[in-house]
Amino acid sequence: MKNFRLVLEYDGTDFLGWQIQPRGRTIQGVLESTLQQLLQQRVRLIGAGRTDAGVHALGQVANFHAETRLSPSTIRSGLNSLSPGDIQVRGLAEVSPDFHARFDARSRTYTYRIRPVFSPLRRRFAWTVTYPLNWNAVVEAAAQFVGDKDFRSFGSLPNEGGSSRCQVFGAVWSRDGDEMVLEIEADRFLSHMVRAIVGTLVDVGRGRITPNSIPDIIAAQDRRKAGPAAPAHGLCLVRVRYD
Amino acid sequence: MKNFRLVLEYDGTDFLGWQIQPRGRTIQGVLESTLQQLLQQRVRLIGAGRTDAGVHALGQVANFHAETRLSPSTIRSGLNSLSPGDIQVRGLAEVSPDFHARFDARSRTYTYRIRPVFSPLRRRFAWTVTYPLNWNAVVEAAAQFVGDKDFRSFGSLPNEGGSSRCQVFGAVWSRDGDEMVLEIEADRFLSHMVRAIVGTLVDVGRGRITPNSIPDIIAAQDRRKAGPAAPAHGLCLVRVRYD
Repeated sequence: MKNFRLVLEYDGTDFLGWQIQPRGRTIQGVLESTLQQLLQQRVRLIGAGRTDAGVHALGQVANFHAETRLSPSTIRSGLNSLSPGDIQVRGLAEVSPDFHARFDARSRTYTYRIRPVFSPLRRRFAWTVTYPLNWNAVVEAAAQFVGDKDFRSFGSLPNEGGSSRCQVFGAVWSRDGDEMVLEIEADRFLSHMVRAIVGTLVDVGRGRITPNSIPDIIAAQDRRKAGPAAPAHGLCLVRVRYD
Repeated sequence: MKNFRLVLEYDGTDFLGWQIQPRGRTIQGVLESTLQQLLQQRVRLIGAGRTDAGVHALGQVANFHAETRLSPSTIRSGLNSLSPGDIQVRGLAEVSPDFHARFDARSRTYTYRIRPVFSPLRRRFAWTVTYPLNWNAVVEAAAQFVGDKDFRSFGSLPNEGGSSRCQVFGAVWSRDGDEMVLEIEADRFLSHMVRAIVGTLVDVGRGRITPNSIPDIIAAQDRRKAGPAAPAHGLCLVRVRYD
């Protein structure tokens, strides 16, 4: 059995998320059935991050095992010609048999985009927040998330019983035209964690809470203390790092 | 009767173009029926540029006459709350009764975006050209279009019998991330003119013709001498200027 690693870009708008489901269009589901068509065997894709419905990816990483004589570049171009326009394989390579896209990932990086005015051309990719947001306050507040902390106030565990500690390596705002972009990197994220952090940062930007209340919200370990989750469509998985 | 001027943004993907048609979804059609719903009267919208199916706008300008006591800001917010997400009114103001969005326009500016690799996130807004394009050649060739010329080789007249002369004020390439962007401004454009110019510039970039063949193609006044029209989805009407 060979092991292949894929780097994927997708527009999450018309998907129910990464993870395969009995009903409904998912990225894993579409790719697994395309791989089955191409390789004439059942294939199970392992994704580094299980993105929610509506969440995009520029650099999702996945792997699958298969028995095939097709070259990686043939599989890649086959997948891209059979896949719908909202999924694209950006890279595909054979890797060592024990590579695991989820367990071996050292960090995931997401961006979240906020814009001040609704735009038809950007409506799939940025959340419109018409309240003025205090730039210095959101920058200061974002920095409070960096470190090895228990993030129970900002998300739920995908599986019962696991740890809710995450190590956030960076959380930095930048500007791109009239959009504000949060880039946040961590070893792992709880479910809806980036969206809850963004919702809380918008509360800070609007002046409803202060940047120095963030450590207290984290320490509370209570999801009700943080802000509401920002909508999915502003979120994008941009990068997954491995050793 | 009052006269109102609108500045419009739209994602042209799911429209059959600007102009109202007996069947099919058009920008003019959607806006006229929304205005009728809002103002309780039949309204005729005049657009500065009749964008084709799939062509986008960031700054289309239109005007309409109506009898109403509603303020411009009320009409604007009413239109935006009733319009679908792929149309947005960016500005609306009362103007002098004789303002005409099409006849009074002094210039239209379009952008055309080309990218080297297919991207799901950009698939509605940029044409993927995987051939390497010679940057210096396309820059030099674009400059050949500037001036007051007969552009019959690059487009057809919307109405029989009119002039095919257009004054191109500028045609400049720039880079935006991994995309190449042509910005072209002229007093008027023939049907499909920007797309035929872009198709011809791609022929130059690929080395199929040289930049200095452009004046000959223009002089031929023969549509068959120019390149094929580039696809609609890379094109966007960004600005319309008035005195």
